[in-house]
Amino acid sequence: MFFHKQELQFKATPDNPDAVYARKLQEVLGGQYGEITVALQYSFQAWNTHIPGKYRDLLFGIGAEEFGHVEMLATMIAQLLEKAPLGITDDAVQSDPAIAAVIGGTDMQQAIVAGAGARPVDSNGNPWQGSYVTASGNLLADFTANANAEMQGRVQVARLYHMTDDSGVRDLLSFLLARDTMHQNQWLAAARELQEEGAESLPVPSNFPINKEERSVSYQYLNFSDGAAAAEGSWASGPTPDGKGEFTYHDGPTTSAPMPPPTHPDSRFYGTTELPNTVEKVAGAVQDKLRRE
Amino acid sequence: MFFHKQELQFKATPDNPDAVYARKLQEVLGGQYGEITVALQYSFQAWNTHIPGKYRDLLFGIGAEEFGHVEMLATMIAQLLEKAPLGITDDAVQSDPAIAAVIGGTDMQQAIVAGAGARPVDSNGNPWQGSYVTASGNLLADFTANANAEMQGRVQVARLYHMTDDSGVRDLLSFLLARDTMHQNQWLAAARELQEEGAESLPVPSNFPINKEERSVSYQYLNFSDGAAAAEGSWASGPTPDGKGEFTYHDGPTTSAPMPPPTHPDSRFYGTTELPNTVEKVAGAVQDKLRRE
Amino acid sequence: MFFHKQELQFKATPDNPDAVYARKLQEVLGGQYGEITVALQYSFQAWNTHIPGKYRDLLFGIGAEEFGHVEMLATMIAQLLEKAPLGITDDAVQSDPAIAAVIGGTDMQQAIVAGAGARPVDSNGNPWQGSYVTASGNLLADFTANANAEMQGRVQVARLYHMTDDSGVRDLLSFLLARDTMHQNQWLAAARELQEEGAESLPVPSNFPINKEERSVSYQYLNFSDGAAAAEGSWASGPTPDGKGEFTYHDGPTTSAPMPPPTHPDSRFYGTTELPNTVEKVAGAVQDKLRRE
Amino acid sequence: MFFHKQELQFKATPDNPDAVYARKLQEVLGGQYGEITVALQYSFQAWNTHIPGKYRDLLFGIGAEEFGHVEMLATMIAQLLEKAPLGITDDAVQSDPAIAAVIGGTDMQQAIVAGAGARPVDSNGNPWQGSYVTASGNLLADFTANANAEMQGRVQVARLYHMTDDSGVRDLLSFLLARDTMHQNQWLAAARELQEEGAESLPVPSNFPINKEERSVSYQYLNFSDGAAAAEGSWASGPTPDGKGEFTYHDGPTTSAPMPPPTHPDSRFYGTTELPNTVEKVAGAVQDKLRRE
Amino acid sequence: MFFHKQELQFKATPDNPDAVYARKLQEVLGGQYGEITVALQYSFQAWNTHIPGKYRDLLFGIGAEEFGHVEMLATMIAQLLEKAPLGITDDAVQSDPAIAAVIGGTDMQQAIVAGAGARPVDSNGNPWQGSYVTASGNLLADFTANANAEMQGRVQVARLYHMTDDSGVRDLLSFLLARDTMHQNQWLAAARELQEEGAESLPVPSNFPINKEERSVSYQYLNFSDGAAAAEGSWASGPTPDGKGEFTYHDGPTTSAPMPPPTHPDSRFYGTTELPNTVEKVAGAVQDKLRRE
Amino acid sequence: MFFHKQELQFKATPDNPDAVYARKLQEVLGGQYGEITVALQYSFQAWNTHIPGKYRDLLFGIGAEEFGHVEMLATMIAQLLEKAPLGITDDAVQSDPAIAAVIGGTDMQQAIVAGAGARPVDSNGNPWQGSYVTASGNLLADFTANANAEMQGRVQVARLYHMTDDSGVRDLLSFLLARDTMHQNQWLAAARELQEEGAESLPVPSNFPINKEERSVSYQYLNFSDGAAAAEGSWASGPTPDGKGEFTYHDGPTTSAPMPPPTHPDSRFYGTTELPNTVEKVAGAVQDKLRRE
Repeated sequence: MFFHKQELQFKATPDNPDAVYARKLQEVLGGQYGEITVALQYSFQAWNTHIPGKYRDLLFGIGAEEFGHVEMLATMIAQLLEKAPLGITDDAVQSDPAIAAVIGGTDMQQAIVAGAGARPVDSNGNPWQGSYVTASGNLLADFTANANAEMQGRVQVARLYHMTDDSGVRDLLSFLLARDTMHQNQWLAAARELQEEGAESLPVPSNFPINKEERSVSYQYLNFSDGAAAAEGSWASGPTPDGKGEFTYHDGPTTSAPMPPPTHPDSRFYGTTELPNTVEKVAGAVQDKLRRE
Repeated sequence: MFFHKQELQFKATPDNPDAVYARKLQEVLGGQYGEITVALQYSFQAWNTHIPGKYRDLLFGIGAEEFGHVEMLATMIAQLLEKAPLGITDDAVQSDPAIAAVIGGTDMQQAIVAGAGARPVDSNGNPWQGSYVTASGNLLADFTANANAEMQGRVQVARLYHMTDDSGVRDLLSFLLARDTMHQNQWLAAARELQEEGAESLPVPSNFPINKEERSVSYQYLNFSDGAAAAEGSWASGPTPDGKGEFTYHDGPTTSAPMPPPTHPDSRFYGTTELPNTVEKVAGAVQDKLRRE
Repeated sequence: MFFHKQELQFKATPDNPDAVYARKLQEVLGGQYGEITVALQYSFQAWNTHIPGKYRDLLFGIGAEEFGHVEMLATMIAQLLEKAPLGITDDAVQSDPAIAAVIGGTDMQQAIVAGAGARPVDSNGNPWQGSYVTASGNLLADFTANANAEMQGRVQVARLYHMTDDSGVRDLLSFLLARDTMHQNQWLAAARELQEEGAESLPVPSNFPINKEERSVSYQYLNFSDGAAAAEGSWASGPTPDGKGEFTYHDGPTTSAPMPPPTHPDSRFYGTTELPNTVEKVAGAVQDKLRRE
Repeated sequence: MFFHKQELQFKATPDNPDAVYARKLQEVLGGQYGEITVALQYSFQAWNTHIPGKYRDLLFGIGAEEFGHVEMLATMIAQLLEKAPLGITDDAVQSDPAIAAVIGGTDMQQAIVAGAGARPVDSNGNPWQGSYVTASGNLLADFTANANAEMQGRVQVARLYHMTDDSGVRDLLSFLLARDTMHQNQWLAAARELQEEGAESLPVPSNFPINKEERSVSYQYLNFSDGAAAAEGSWASGPTPDGKGEFTYHDGPTTSAPMPPPTHPDSRFYGTTELPNTVEKVAGAVQDKLRRE
Repeated sequence: MFFHKQELQFKATPDNPDAVYARKLQEVLGGQYGEITVALQYSFQAWNTHIPGKYRDLLFGIGAEEFGHVEMLATMIAQLLEKAPLGITDDAVQSDPAIAAVIGGTDMQQAIVAGAGARPVDSNGNPWQGSYVTASGNLLADFTANANAEMQGRVQVARLYHMTDDSGVRDLLSFLLARDTMHQNQWLAAARELQEEGAESLPVPSNFPINKEERSVSYQYLNFSDGAAAAEGSWASGPTPDGKGEFTYHDGPTTSAPMPPPTHPDSRFYGTTELPNTVEKVAGAVQDKLRRE
Repeated sequence: MFFHKQELQFKATPDNPDAVYARKLQEVLGGQYGEITVALQYSFQAWNTHIPGKYRDLLFGIGAEEFGHVEMLATMIAQLLEKAPLGITDDAVQSDPAIAAVIGGTDMQQAIVAGAGARPVDSNGNPWQGSYVTASGNLLADFTANANAEMQGRVQVARLYHMTDDSGVRDLLSFLLARDTMHQNQWLAAARELQEEGAESLPVPSNFPINKEERSVSYQYLNFSDGAAAAEGSWASGPTPDGKGEFTYHDGPTTSAPMPPPTHPDSRFYGTTELPNTVEKVAGAVQDKLRRE
């Protein structure tokens, strides 16, 4: 169960309206790596996890915080839009290129659809979607997904920091940056702990019988491009991070197989095959040729 | 530039047709973590990278391999569908529940749309989409995204391994599992190397001026759920992975702010406000009440 | 802020596994009118509302409950999948048409992607999306949207009730049905109260200056089909619900205008226009004709 | 069957070109509550309805009108774009910030893809989609959906009215506003008539055996937030709109259940479980630890 | 304007219910090349065309017919679902694998969402979307798009023909096949007429100044794969269909350019660059290394 | 298999940065008819084809070239963004309407998400999707799809040519225009060759037994609009392109059927039917009426 409290985790009030920035902030609310994603991702991971205890508690504990971040951003966006020109027009407005420029850069649906409010979309207006969520039930894979989400998210907030000089907005961003710092650290710590406890190890999933994979190519770097510098990396020689092999470097594939012949499914799929296979077809072709001549 | 060679990297021929399995394989071809995703993800990261040399060569080198994996899966799917009942019907077929069961589990668009062929969609028929791709220009974030993609992908292939006992299919999967093992190791090695070289460190992005984040909350675990076990993890006390702080544990938020008052945008957005603000509105309300009585 | 409690609002445990039903339940979790929709819809309406007090408190109060319903359904789905055949196969399984039938009817991504867990998608596997959310800032419009969402939702749960005879599942559905009953009543009561208080009236938005609409057609039923029975309805004669007019019935439109002539945008858009407009074009056409002869 | 007539229902010609406004108008053509939605929604409801006569005739009668509204808007958009700068450039244009501002605010696909024409998308360029359509077969639910669609649509048109001062555009909008007024009234009248005739009543669906829902919570307002004002509303005490109960007010849930234990699906899904379950896994963990030391 | 008549263009009544087939028929109603696509595609082309007269009349004349085809299919689908088992269950049904197989193959949203009715989606349940529509304003390009749509559509209907032996369904399909035959012929005739009249010729768009394209590569077949057989085709030598050149054959590219160096955007985008660019970054890296040792 | 070479097929370097144009170019990279579409479309057609030899070699040969076009455009976009103002702000920038105008017209995700890089999306930011791909297995249908894709693509590039005067960009476009010229010619030649060889003829699919279509309407032009000019076209009289009939012209449909009666599915779908069908329903209606009085 979730309970709501009519307080925010941090102050979220801009100094000034800024409708263009209100559009940009949508990215970290409703984008691929926005707050809706992490809130639902950690929640679905908790619901799909197969072990009680600290890992599930961690997922629930952070997931609920992220719903509150959605709220802070939605609240901030509404205030950024409150006094801003959103295309409500009169003669004066239309003749001012500066205001026209502002309006051109806004999310028009924030105005027309939401009446100067936030929406569950990204900065290009694409609706948030469930396919952003990763929750596989394998915690090492999922914690790595979470570390990535917090990294991408913090990169985006850092970029947004420089796109405004409003101190109220920057205050909120400084808080979100700090929480992303925490969450990056936490998921990496959790991924490490999973491995130290032997719950999972590399390669993920670690309990798949490894002898069933084609081990001859498990540690080969196969270079399918013509850049040679990749041979210098720690991924091209030396021990592998999973502790189970040695990297080797190869220019191009080490295996190959002839391409199987084309398929010939049932003729009632009406795909094109090499020879006319009905009398009608021949007749049609003849007729076509005659007509053209 | 890309060049194509009419060979496969590994043999990809099933022993028997299996139209239901042909649908399942679509997941690792055209799903969120399928081969189209990694092929285009590594390519876009290469195109967006800001440094020449080993990291870019690595991205190009692996990206091109993944396009070949798309091809192996598409080829396999077409063969699985070649002799399978795909809903082409006759009296006998319709009265056999076993065949009906098979048909019910197929991807009907593989039959109706592709004529017994593969499609750029996942196992539920959702089209692949560009929003699956992550390419931020920050390599530590992106290599973490790649490690996650290879982990999720290998988990899915491992599951698929047990959903068939066709030895031809399993051979291909054993090859893909091995390559996923390689790629997990490689991206983790590359992420480590980036940090050892000082190109990036934690928290990502590492060159954002850290004093501009709200450091007081950068290492606090804030438990927004009522499970207590998360306090036992390495993310709740001790040094943080970024080497810059100490984790602390807190039950609930350590900061709060009153929720800002509701906004009052321009009345021409026609949102509902607390008091009737036009004579017309009052009149309308009175009229409504009279009518009801 | 949101807080999570590791309890459910109601018991949510099936008597038996049922993987096909686990797919069906996804509809009311992640479909157009599923619980994710109402949870986020009421939350966004609260964040976008322009008045403090009872209406906003109502939106927050119910919104948070709905997040808990998402959780109950996700929990139920994982249990329905726990012991069910999800395509994990061995020889015995494959030869049993009954089990094949079951597997054919499952959501294959619940198995391959989520490892026997719930996902933020509908019963056809379409990801939930932000465009399902309605939050316009106009409360009479939005409460009507909410009443509709609860009606559609309750219709779907009622249908699902008859698609199982598992008493554990039915218990949960009986609870959801009751809450949908409550929420239908509540949104209709709120919509009525808004009008009685004069905050909004019909037509929505009520404070748009009504003389600026083309009043001559504001209460005309215009029949663009050839069925005559619609003339018998209360929408074809008598007073209108907004209390401001009288319905009249008309066969077809009462107004018309000639279609404007086709547009002629800049020729550099290379649309087709009636006459060849460049020498080159004429030459090309001549050449084409010659070649055909 | 549908027949087309090369006339418009109302004049639809702007006084002046306005490419930015042409983008905005896309919202009510191809957005969630645009004319394509209502045209197809009423049509699908008619095709799915289970009763002949006045209700079906009404659905057909209005549905066909709405297709004509799509046409009026598409026609208007093409004219707004006809002489407007759409990014066709020369030196003079590029150096003028006013024109640059205009171009920045346009829908670039109207220019690049449609050659200065309308498209089946919304004002942010999101393609119209079938998931906007509601047609459940339950007419009280569906007429409520329709009333909502007309309310949301009229709110959007009212907002658009103030975003232009072009008298030709405003004329068209004044017509659409009037028709939305009509359609709001009509669907509310139809919903009322359904109930008066006993075809449906509250709660929807009214013929689900109500004793099968958990009646103890059917009229409880459960406040999952900490705002107290919702207790003052007509949804917290007094008779319910369905005439079958009395509202009561409760702070928080009145029921609860322990969360079921985590699931343990087949190990071949490779989810993470609490204890290493293979020798290999233990070995891997030991190896990992050794490597780190 | 559009007018509706409560008749169908052709009889559309199945002999027997068939819920699995009802799902399959969705493809030609709401799929990429279904009837909604062609109805709206021809309509948008008509609204975007720049010439009055026969071509526009043709677009309107056929577009309106296609809306009627949507109606026939929706009507047929509802009837196929009318008496079919759609998951409405009782003990007997559940124990019958034949019925289970049927239910597994149905579109569950036709049951749960539409109450045994059609929906604007394809046979995998993907919602129809506006991006299926092509309407560029260039009639030769668009008529080619239309010819393709009718070919793909007829292929799909032909496949569906063999997936049923219901004579009522087959009657409807035989009608749709005939109309697709007509429409293929018609669009090809129209494309030919456009060229004969000189309104457009190849390459499309024909009035782009052809000297502004890089003519040296305009007729070169560049083989980027290693299959040699393509050299035998009429696209590798001889005169070109546009009558303006001669095909030549080349193994691989005839031009090349070095890849430009990686970009170095503003450092505040926090992409990874080759050298640590802040003191902080160096310090972080040193600290990282120390911590690891 | 695919191999990558770190060279471009043609030079792709702009003279100057232009962030607005970088957004526009996304259309031909990641739009419906962009390079990702044709690269994957030709590849899937090759994988789904049923004949070895020249046609499949052609598909592979061109498909691989198109992947290189994706790369050229992505490279160009990154350079256009390299020095451009992307919303990184300071006081001076914000006060300059010209720069504000530029920023308003940019793709904000190129900045926030990709850090000044290209993305797999179109010019409105819609992600590329698998449903753009056409690969039916019928080569005449598919080559027509390809001809259309190259025509639409060349129209778009031609429009983009006039939206810039940067000579570096125009050089790249002149190359793409030429390749589109080639590919239009090539697919039309291949379509013609297919017919001349008798592999396919009109109507597609040509080997469907034509006597199973309703031949009486196979060549009738049925005018469902009121424009009379379509009677003048070559599609209204004379021989048909498939060489199998004569066009005839008809005002409106030549066939009709009464609309079937509405369906009555199982009452447990809770659709609305004409008469109250349960005692409870009647009681509810009575109660409702009483309450209203």
